[in-house]
Amino acid sequence: MSAITVAILGATGAVGTRMIEQLEQSNIEVRDLRLLASPRSVGKVQTFRGQEYEVSAATPDSFIGVDLVLSSAGGSVSKKLIPHAVKNGAVCIDNTSAFRMDPEVPLVIPEVNSDDLDWHHGIIANPNCSTIQMLVALAPLDRKYGLNRIIVSTYQAASGAGQSAWSELLEEARQHLDGQAEIAKILPVSGASHHYPLAFNLLPQIDVFEDNGYTHEEWKMIHESKKILRHDLNNSDLKVTATCVRVPVPVGHGESVYFELEQNPSVPEIQTVLDQADGIVLQDDPRTQLYPQPITAEGHQSTFVGRIRADAENPGGYNLWVVSDNLLKGAAWNAVQIAETLVQRELL
Amino acid sequence: MSAITVAILGATGAVGTRMIEQLEQSNIEVRDLRLLASPRSVGKVQTFRGQEYEVSAATPDSFIGVDLVLSSAGGSVSKKLIPHAVKNGAVCIDNTSAFRMDPEVPLVIPEVNSDDLDWHHGIIANPNCSTIQMLVALAPLDRKYGLNRIIVSTYQAASGAGQSAWSELLEEARQHLDGQAEIAKILPVSGASHHYPLAFNLLPQIDVFEDNGYTHEEWKMIHESKKILRHDLNNSDLKVTATCVRVPVPVGHGESVYFELEQNPSVPEIQTVLDQADGIVLQDDPRTQLYPQPITAEGHQSTFVGRIRADAENPGGYNLWVVSDNLLKGAAWNAVQIAETLVQRELL
Repeated sequence: MSAITVAILGATGAVGTRMIEQLEQSNIEVRDLRLLASPRSVGKVQTFRGQEYEVSAATPDSFIGVDLVLSSAGGSVSKKLIPHAVKNGAVCIDNTSAFRMDPEVPLVIPEVNSDDLDWHHGIIANPNCSTIQMLVALAPLDRKYGLNRIIVSTYQAASGAGQSAWSELLEEARQHLDGQAEIAKILPVSGASHHYPLAFNLLPQIDVFEDNGYTHEEWKMIHESKKILRHDLNNSDLKVTATCVRVPVPVGHGESVYFELEQNPSVPEIQTVLDQADGIVLQDDPRTQLYPQPITAEGHQSTFVGRIRADAENPGGYNLWVVSDNLLKGAAWNAVQIAETLVQRELL
Repeated sequence: MSAITVAILGATGAVGTRMIEQLEQSNIEVRDLRLLASPRSVGKVQTFRGQEYEVSAATPDSFIGVDLVLSSAGGSVSKKLIPHAVKNGAVCIDNTSAFRMDPEVPLVIPEVNSDDLDWHHGIIANPNCSTIQMLVALAPLDRKYGLNRIIVSTYQAASGAGQSAWSELLEEARQHLDGQAEIAKILPVSGASHHYPLAFNLLPQIDVFEDNGYTHEEWKMIHESKKILRHDLNNSDLKVTATCVRVPVPVGHGESVYFELEQNPSVPEIQTVLDQADGIVLQDDPRTQLYPQPITAEGHQSTFVGRIRADAENPGGYNLWVVSDNLLKGAAWNAVQIAETLVQRELL
């Protein structure tokens, strides 16, 4: 494969900087790198494989000669600029929700549905962080035993809402410990009317509310899971419900997942399947108090799974606990992993 | 009713001090107050209704002449001393897990099953904090529509493990912000082999592990719910499963509760039932981003319920979010409320 020109859109954000690092560590041969961001970031310098690259402002013309775009600059920027990149012949891996539900856009987790990359039309969407880690854990069980139902409650880290939300959490924590009033400006939702402190608190709202009382984050988990596992965002054979809660953790989403399978494997059988599955590290040993935690998952590409238990009153029903670095597998690493897979499958 | 002599066992702890405050605010006439604790707390002074009382060491003889004992000094202290109190004619309301599953001991949440107080034999048990707030929210729906199933994931505050766990959380947070190593000595379980930081982290272990992979906290939620709602700790008509997670919040447990009813009421119907139910404050308005949060629940006796949603794919299935001050309704207030009810029902 010949070396390619890669553009990173949103290069200075929490996800963007990690996309650069993940790309640097990958086996993709990069001839040229373009770092694109908003005007206020122009001039910032990033090092990539020993060379320095300067950030420039993203415009429709930024993609001439670009082979691959990795974008994470928010949905409205994606909607504005990605079509221009596609017109210029680039393949775009978009981390935002802008194109995820478009029937022409594959929604891909490489361990789960890489074959969906084959029919891309220029854009591939990264699923939502919370969806990704859950399906990495459940897809191997779906394949082997048949998955019927998911009931998930999430414990999502502040950085899922961006670098400024992460900083706000730490600032509020310091204010709380110093006995000062906490000033919330961003969370739970940056554009919304009300803001509440996250430090030492819980906020059961992630993204805006839909008409049926669910939040858009919950809607995403439900419909993205159906699209990825059943190729139908409204599939009725796989029932999914979700409650998404923001917790005072900087990095690393936790998820308590209740699920039902067609078959009724034992817990050791499930542990074996997950232990052998791609992208998963099993951390499940009550005797040594071993289970996934955000502080141990942070900085790692893997999805960590533990607390696997059978629901004795409901054969085929189980609980488990899954944690992953939401900025890596939940975003930057999944995007670069898709890029590596595209190269491998000669789809770039 | 004549004034009674009350003993508080565990008077200096996070729950004990709140039991004194709740008793002070109650309508119970107290002739004399005995504050009992461990030897290292002897001599500490507490004010109660304008008078000062000194803490003394708890012994089997501490209960002579006592009418009512409110105890929260750990299960082993309860097992050792409560039988002596009962022998001396006292009625004991115990906040620990020591007697909860004893068939001779009512397990009571006043809004839910006050009638169970009628058959007490000297000891009444306060349920576990996480059980209490969940059943305050679900019992009105059980009564009206029939409850079949509960799938709960908890977000439990550090103070549920005691004052020292609360202090450890704040200390670790400060260490984390100051860039120092966090020293965990207590959480997740005080006596266990491994300790992990809670600050900016999630710990999916509360209490010790059972043989089936569930923790004792999860076991308590399952079996206490069956005992309280069905008078049978192994009742098979009400299916209950639970995942209990410790979160970096000092006070105020959160719970994401999925439940199934026999009937299929609408969300507005459910909101009306809960809004009118004792002990509940409904905080459920997406338009104004109104939902329960630990920081707003702290210090209040009520149980706060919100995020009520129907599971469109499963008629009769719903999600909700409930928060309460785990030291008040979860412990001290529920205990004093039981005492008020005993007085009201002339059972003391």
